Amino acid sequence: MQQRVKPVQVIKYSSQSLEKEMDDLVIIEEPLAIRIGYGASHHRLQKNLTITMRTPGHDFELTLGFLYSEGIIQHLSQVQSIRYCTELQRLEEHENIVRVELSPDVDLSQTLYERNFMASSSCGICGKAQIESLEQQNCLTLNHWEYHISPTFLWEIEAKLTQNQTLFSYTGGAHAVAIYENTGELVLLREDIGRHNALDKVIGAKLGLEKQAIAPILVLSSRVSYEMIQKSIIAQFPIIVAVGAPSSLAVELAQQFGITLIAFLRKGKFNVYTHEFRVQ
Amino acid sequence: MQQRVKPVQVIKYSSQSLEKEMDDLVIIEEPLAIRIGYGASHHRLQKNLTITMRTPGHDFELTLGFLYSEGIIQHLSQVQSIRYCTELQRLEEHENIVRVELSPDVDLSQTLYERNFMASSSCGICGKAQIESLEQQNCLTLNHWEYHISPTFLWEIEAKLTQNQTLFSYTGGAHAVAIYENTGELVLLREDIGRHNALDKVIGAKLGLEKQAIAPILVLSSRVSYEMIQKSIIAQFPIIVAVGAPSSLAVELAQQFGITLIAFLRKGKFNVYTHEFRVQ
Repeated sequence: MQQRVKPVQVIKYSSQSLEKEMDDLVIIEEPLAIRIGYGASHHRLQKNLTITMRTPGHDFELTLGFLYSEGIIQHLSQVQSIRYCTELQRLEEHENIVRVELSPDVDLSQTLYERNFMASSSCGICGKAQIESLEQQNCLTLNHWEYHISPTFLWEIEAKLTQNQTLFSYTGGAHAVAIYENTGELVLLREDIGRHNALDKVIGAKLGLEKQAIAPILVLSSRVSYEMIQKSIIAQFPIIVAVGAPSSLAVELAQQFGITLIAFLRKGKFNVYTHEFRVQ
Repeated sequence: MQQRVKPVQVIKYSSQSLEKEMDDLVIIEEPLAIRIGYGASHHRLQKNLTITMRTPGHDFELTLGFLYSEGIIQHLSQVQSIRYCTELQRLEEHENIVRVELSPDVDLSQTLYERNFMASSSCGICGKAQIESLEQQNCLTLNHWEYHISPTFLWEIEAKLTQNQTLFSYTGGAHAVAIYENTGELVLLREDIGRHNALDKVIGAKLGLEKQAIAPILVLSSRVSYEMIQKSIIAQFPIIVAVGAPSSLAVELAQQFGITLIAFLRKGKFNVYTHEFRVQ
């Protein structure tokens, strides 16, 4: 298993005691490059899609979740192979480049990735335009999802999430994203130095589940911004619960797409921002 | 002044009381596109450099700080003009696109931006390669900076930072970055939904100060990762203090470039990770 924490020596100061040198752990941050190619046998085209600073571990899930949540793939069947690039000279790079071979039907010129990051400057740069852009991509609203969630269940989640944040408990430096079944069962939890990465890992892991669990509740240990909601719409989570604050655009997007957005889940309290009918 | 918070209606739940509908504020998140062009009169070349999700306000500082901290410009004199794009049809977009005219001597092919995000996949993808890449760009170490900081001063900063986080106090959703003189005086503080944006706003504002303040202490309300230290090296801050956790790569980079890295400044405590000689 890839290392995810690293031992360091720190000097701890406190207003209550003398300084002391101690062993401590920090969360590992390493770059991950995602390369995509078409046609495993021909190597006709290869593209560097993105580089993200992530905590090693669950890299294939992260990659698949990224491809899916950015709208580049719609099904796992479009992935012909996924592997680390091991032809590199430097040994420590071997697990920092993931190469994905996509089936020839994946049309990259149509991907959300391009629309988001390259062409959006011509189609509009404001919150409203971002939301319209998602509508034009035929992203489905989640109004029809009838699941409910109770306040008691939310306070249970608050306690459970903390218990399962292993990396955070060691380092204080990791975000967690988890999904829960409507019955209250934890389906998946992933941690990463980046909250987008943690979400992509969960989305990628969910794609790979043999039996697609009905897990309508997405829980984020972090704040919740536009991009987190955007990914959640594509992955179809009707209930989003964040420990931190929401942004204006997160609230608008959740409103528009029928998502129940709950935030500031802490100390036995929470706020409901949109589609309150699911809280009962 | 651009709006930075937005009123929303929320339903507040508490295990101690009945639910109630209340007015609340959320932090505004809107996209900002940065476009650069060469030669104001000829419009020979225009390039969409980046889109960032930011809180409106101090957009020109954010833009200049980004250009500087990414190594695209080295002096303000390389900026011929900076303005909003106001030719767009949609009124709400007018303040979401900043256009910068650069002087012809700025060579974009040599920028850190290109090296970081485009070409780094060929020159190495691992923490060590990232650090070597900064060394190759002739980034200066800060070993020679002789400034000192005392524990008492750090606990004062802890209290001061919270007092000055206006957006955070309203919304719970903003990061702050501040710089302090060695005498303890607060020079600048900026808030943003994104910690990188808050740092770029501070770096851009510092560039524009008539008299360059000697402000060696950079304080972050957030965690501290590789990218935050990378920008700090370019902007030459020898002392970095974070309220949150550091990453492995942040510690390695601070060690290599002579930065005193302090983190977990909270509740009268802090940890020193590197170059402790400056804490006295």
